[in-house]
Amino acid sequence: MTFTVERLAEEVQGTIWGDRDVIIHGAESIERAGPHDITFVAERRRLRALRQCKAGAILVSKELAGVKDREDVPPAIIFVDDAQLAFIQILRKFRPQRPRPQIGISEDAWIAPSAKIGEATNVYPGAYVAEDVTIGARCDIYPGVFIGPGCRIGDEVTIYPNAVLYPDVTLGHRVIIHAGAVLGADGFGYRFEQGRYKKIPQLGTVRIEDDVEIGAGTTIDRGMIGPTVIGEGSKLDDQVMIGHNCEIGAHNAFASQVGLAGSVTTGDYVRCAGQVGVADHVHLGEGCTLLAKAGVHRDIPAGKMYVGVPARPKEEQMQIAICEGKLPEMKKTLEQLAAEVDRLRAILEQHGLAEPA
Amino acid sequence: MTFTVERLAEEVQGTIWGDRDVIIHGAESIERAGPHDITFVAERRRLRALRQCKAGAILVSKELAGVKDREDVPPAIIFVDDAQLAFIQILRKFRPQRPRPQIGISEDAWIAPSAKIGEATNVYPGAYVAEDVTIGARCDIYPGVFIGPGCRIGDEVTIYPNAVLYPDVTLGHRVIIHAGAVLGADGFGYRFEQGRYKKIPQLGTVRIEDDVEIGAGTTIDRGMIGPTVIGEGSKLDDQVMIGHNCEIGAHNAFASQVGLAGSVTTGDYVRCAGQVGVADHVHLGEGCTLLAKAGVHRDIPAGKMYVGVPARPKEEQMQIAICEGKLPEMKKTLEQLAAEVDRLRAILEQHGLAEPA
Amino acid sequence: MTFTVERLAEEVQGTIWGDRDVIIHGAESIERAGPHDITFVAERRRLRALRQCKAGAILVSKELAGVKDREDVPPAIIFVDDAQLAFIQILRKFRPQRPRPQIGISEDAWIAPSAKIGEATNVYPGAYVAEDVTIGARCDIYPGVFIGPGCRIGDEVTIYPNAVLYPDVTLGHRVIIHAGAVLGADGFGYRFEQGRYKKIPQLGTVRIEDDVEIGAGTTIDRGMIGPTVIGEGSKLDDQVMIGHNCEIGAHNAFASQVGLAGSVTTGDYVRCAGQVGVADHVHLGEGCTLLAKAGVHRDIPAGKMYVGVPARPKEEQMQIAICEGKLPEMKKTLEQLAAEVDRLRAILEQHGLAEPA
Repeated sequence: MTFTVERLAEEVQGTIWGDRDVIIHGAESIERAGPHDITFVAERRRLRALRQCKAGAILVSKELAGVKDREDVPPAIIFVDDAQLAFIQILRKFRPQRPRPQIGISEDAWIAPSAKIGEATNVYPGAYVAEDVTIGARCDIYPGVFIGPGCRIGDEVTIYPNAVLYPDVTLGHRVIIHAGAVLGADGFGYRFEQGRYKKIPQLGTVRIEDDVEIGAGTTIDRGMIGPTVIGEGSKLDDQVMIGHNCEIGAHNAFASQVGLAGSVTTGDYVRCAGQVGVADHVHLGEGCTLLAKAGVHRDIPAGKMYVGVPARPKEEQMQIAICEGKLPEMKKTLEQLAAEVDRLRAILEQHGLAEPA
Repeated sequence: MTFTVERLAEEVQGTIWGDRDVIIHGAESIERAGPHDITFVAERRRLRALRQCKAGAILVSKELAGVKDREDVPPAIIFVDDAQLAFIQILRKFRPQRPRPQIGISEDAWIAPSAKIGEATNVYPGAYVAEDVTIGARCDIYPGVFIGPGCRIGDEVTIYPNAVLYPDVTLGHRVIIHAGAVLGADGFGYRFEQGRYKKIPQLGTVRIEDDVEIGAGTTIDRGMIGPTVIGEGSKLDDQVMIGHNCEIGAHNAFASQVGLAGSVTTGDYVRCAGQVGVADHVHLGEGCTLLAKAGVHRDIPAGKMYVGVPARPKEEQMQIAICEGKLPEMKKTLEQLAAEVDRLRAILEQHGLAEPA
Repeated sequence: MTFTVERLAEEVQGTIWGDRDVIIHGAESIERAGPHDITFVAERRRLRALRQCKAGAILVSKELAGVKDREDVPPAIIFVDDAQLAFIQILRKFRPQRPRPQIGISEDAWIAPSAKIGEATNVYPGAYVAEDVTIGARCDIYPGVFIGPGCRIGDEVTIYPNAVLYPDVTLGHRVIIHAGAVLGADGFGYRFEQGRYKKIPQLGTVRIEDDVEIGAGTTIDRGMIGPTVIGEGSKLDDQVMIGHNCEIGAHNAFASQVGLAGSVTTGDYVRCAGQVGVADHVHLGEGCTLLAKAGVHRDIPAGKMYVGVPARPKEEQMQIAICEGKLPEMKKTLEQLAAEVDRLRAILEQHGLAEPA
């Protein structure tokens, strides 16, 4: 596919600066774009990447209008309201997605007689749908997916290959479950009796609300009594662990390898960066943010940003980290100071001014 | 289902305080219970949750008898020896589990002719059982499970969907393997030769002893020479990583996202909290505990509790963490002190008492 | 199988010290070897394990010739150039591997009509190969593997059970993908609009170059625009997370539970130990090493070894860790010093030498 810059600018309702006749064959990142590619910059901090940029054209958000005075800009700039959004629009033109196949319910899927499956839903070969399952309309259930007895699944849900839903898990509408995720495995609960761990039955479930996306390999354990809940619109990256009886609020975002022990609760709009760990029964307040690798043992107040192990308010932890970097120097200063104080005391004693301490 | 408090008290051999006629429809956690639910409290530290409790009845362990004098207790209390145990008993009444299906060996499973499968074992559609496999009696092998050549599996073993056993893995009796777990993948072993990593063949196996439970997505690599071993009764949570040639003792408990490098050995009754990491060839002594996110590079003595990176005895690390929190203040004090010592020295020099240092 | 030490020494072109007639039935690690087993020691630091060694014979690298003067050596030593290599050679004799089956393309696999599969490739029952897939020669595609539309796979590739390749992933030659790994799931990219996370389409791919090995349960997300790349010869352990648009150089080695956020780039020969975390857009310089649990937020210079959170050069961080261990003591010294300075000042004031500060 080939377009002129002029044609692409029309597409995104942008204003051209420079050469409107540049021929564009593809859309790439700033680092990878060549003379016939279009790229984009949406944030001021990404401007420095322009220095090595070889793109033929660039989409720039209007607020960065000053860009056109730089020497290192591509031959053509298209100014738009939102460069990322415009870029996605153009990228879709160059990379047309495959249409969603309409395969219906494969004869090579195993479907229990009591399962109910909505219209226009695809169930691929090798998927397994157990007794008393309800699946809504326009869903995609990929090969190797296991849906245990009693699960309830909304409309327009996508479950990628080899994901597993234990019995009685419920998914809302427009939920996306990526490959290999496991929802509803038993929580990690034992009674220690006579030198052995005895399993506590995990009789709760998992409830995933509307518009949630769950990453590949993520595990969400079923509750012991009530449900483990992931609130509406929340997004979990790959390899996240959610322990039993956690109740995650709406519109949370957890990056990869975050781990929550049992019975953690969160308000809405909570964010956790990669590899954060949270102890059991902790509450993360609405809108708080935990930065990468934070280790949390106590409730976090709403709206605050925490980091470190144990987690502290960000500014506090940054001051501590700076001091840690100076610890060897501080230790030396402390030793020198102790020696100097000894010397001064000795002088005072020598002159009869001070009694020996 | 509906019961009176009186009827439930009989069931668990408890003593009623309050209204024995309260009607109970369900069993829930303290936080979620309503006026027709029964709940429980087994630990003193959970008593404060009673304040918001709306339950119609509550099971309480006898040692917390003082509860009945609080103002915030539900209309009915049933005192029992062990409130958690009694609650589980009642919870089972309200949530009858599905009976285990007797499907036998599905025609839609792939079973090698040389495989031997015990009586009353279910092998679901889509499971794969390779050559020379032995599976005991009364096992459940769910869809998508792969059991490689030469595996030996005991009686009453459950392997949940899409778990994978590489060749020659052995499982004892009553083992539970959760969905997506992988046992026996090659250990991470290479020789660095002429600028390339060359694979060292991993010719060992994995041995899982009786009564072990392995969490969803957990990976246990096969040994290079001998077996990687998980000792009797040990419990591993989801997303745990056990490197090649580790030998885990009996009755260990590892929480989610714990990672052990190669050749780690542990005594019996070792506990690791979430996201702990242990370097290769380390020994964790019998009955020791590693707290969340600990990073261990040296052997840990038996019975001790360690935490931090690098891991230190708990009390020591707690002292250090308190000091870390005061580091900015310490740094300021140190600077003030240095200035004051300078001032005092100058005074002494000015009065001819001290020679310049 | 049974061999004399003499026979085994011939096999590995080694020189015997001690009893050449010892009968050997097996090959084991130093710790596990019995009187009819052969073992090996290739590194000086492993010599201390000889004390408890009960092996009948041992392979020793020539550079450790002094071993023969120890009292605790087995009855027979075979000196060789490289004891590890010689041991692997002998181990293979005692543990003959199963021959690779030639099953071809199973009738119980689902293969799209447009898929092209090379000669001598095995596709096991329950594998799924979608439209427009190309698979090279002599590959093994195990049960439960999903290969999405448009994937391109080289020769001699092994994909273990239940691994998942989303659409358009490409694998070079001799690539090994372990069980449950997921390649090409959507990157974690959202726009936050009007209080909701809106998915950014992830239109890039994943490219795995020749001779790469990917561990069990590892997840490698597809790029948003361009490909996520794992360079030639690189080795990833189990449960590693590679975010979207990362470009990993050649011959990198990442241990288990390492997590890279989006757009991380690395030079060749980079090594990451277990549970390392790297923030987005960071560059790891050629030949650098990140030690266990390091948390990296800034570019790492080539060839350096970093550790800690935030990561610092190893020597620096070790000094800091030593000081941290002494923090409680430092705090006490600081308090004593402050009191002593107060005392000295009071003396000077008392003698009229100093004005009150």
